[in-house]
Amino acid sequence: MKFIHKIFNSRPDKGGNFFLEIRHILGFKPKNIELYKKAFTHRSVKITDKEGNLVNYERLEFLGDSMLGSVISEYLFKEVPSGDEGYLTKMRSKVVSREHLNELGRDLNLIKYVNSSIPKENFGDNIHGNVFEALVGAIYLDRGYAYCQKFIDRRVIKPYVDIEQLEGKIISYKSLLIEWCQKEKKSFNFEVYEDNGNEELKHFAVKFKIDDKIITKARATSKKKAEELAAKRAYYALQKKIDTRI
Amino acid sequence: MKFIHKIFNSRPDKGGNFFLEIRHILGFKPKNIELYKKAFTHRSVKITDKEGNLVNYERLEFLGDSMLGSVISEYLFKEVPSGDEGYLTKMRSKVVSREHLNELGRDLNLIKYVNSSIPKENFGDNIHGNVFEALVGAIYLDRGYAYCQKFIDRRVIKPYVDIEQLEGKIISYKSLLIEWCQKEKKSFNFEVYEDNGNEELKHFAVKFKIDDKIITKARATSKKKAEELAAKRAYYALQKKIDTRI
Repeated sequence: MKFIHKIFNSRPDKGGNFFLEIRHILGFKPKNIELYKKAFTHRSVKITDKEGNLVNYERLEFLGDSMLGSVISEYLFKEVPSGDEGYLTKMRSKVVSREHLNELGRDLNLIKYVNSSIPKENFGDNIHGNVFEALVGAIYLDRGYAYCQKFIDRRVIKPYVDIEQLEGKIISYKSLLIEWCQKEKKSFNFEVYEDNGNEELKHFAVKFKIDDKIITKARATSKKKAEELAAKRAYYALQKKIDTRI
Repeated sequence: MKFIHKIFNSRPDKGGNFFLEIRHILGFKPKNIELYKKAFTHRSVKITDKEGNLVNYERLEFLGDSMLGSVISEYLFKEVPSGDEGYLTKMRSKVVSREHLNELGRDLNLIKYVNSSIPKENFGDNIHGNVFEALVGAIYLDRGYAYCQKFIDRRVIKPYVDIEQLEGKIISYKSLLIEWCQKEKKSFNFEVYEDNGNEELKHFAVKFKIDDKIITKARATSKKKAEELAAKRAYYALQKKIDTRI
């Protein structure tokens, strides 16, 4: 494992750089950091352990995929008591779709931590989702099922899973709000500005105003996402009014 | 829920009959017995809860399917450190195959507890596996992930999962043993007799003897299974001898 160790602590002056960043992503303290290093090790690195087994994220990805499926299954089961087996299966496959997982991994900028011996530009889109699943697998081995649930709730369910949107009932909260404002003859405005905070990745903040009064705020990695999030929050804040008037 | 209650306690003189039998199958005490009643309720019964949602095992089956997948994934991950993602995926799909789950459910005679308004003869084969998955779902909701693991280890992994057999390296332990005995010029014998114990389902017991000495014993729901199990045990007991001489 010496080789991996060297790579992940490539800035020894900064000490536990990788550790701190992973801790930030996880939202809790990792116990066995080696597992997380493995979760970011691409097969091209060609490391093997003492027994000659390849050390890379692929096995962790297998494990994480299962755990993610279970956590999402339970969430849907409890969230939609009226949904039958077919409905639940369909909804789960939307949440854990390759496309969705790639989006998740990309938003967390996980590729930054990937240790590979080929240029990162050569990776396909799936690297983002694969590494995300591997991370879930590492969390399971490091801290158990309850921590997987916590992490998935924080990084998948809360920011990304919206039942009504998944059902296709609501395509865009933004367009729903705009429609309502126009009907009600209210002036509205999405005020967008860059707000990177301490993060390396570009972030955008949005203030959604009706008649010049701030209704909701949101922040995300793209303008579109930030607007959609602010609109969603406004939708729930204004729901009674909207429901009865649309 | 009154209606289900009546059915499951159809012999009120015997008190908690269903409770005791389920406890025996689980290997631990159920906390919320209603969940297990639901796990055995077929859609044909057409019960709904206060909110109008259908009460039957199908949603629990969805949940149990995920949990079973996760537990088996972890088992394979740890048991076969040299197996890559493709290998692990293939092995998992063998363990959780419809055919295998039906066998499991049938061996536990779960159909006995199924509450339906159509004759049980009309059910297809999949009822066995479906109810088994629903039972796992009920365990998860009742006692959490660790109890699911315990149950699956006891009722799936220990009695049914043999890596070498799944890999197709060993088709039959019985034929392996016979071959070895013939080579070694040892006389052997599988002594089979009916042994139902307290169980309703027919059981068979086997004594496997070499040169008239009992090597191993086993008990199962078919002659073939009991023989294979006794042979497998003998294989492991005699492994050193067999490995060096074959």
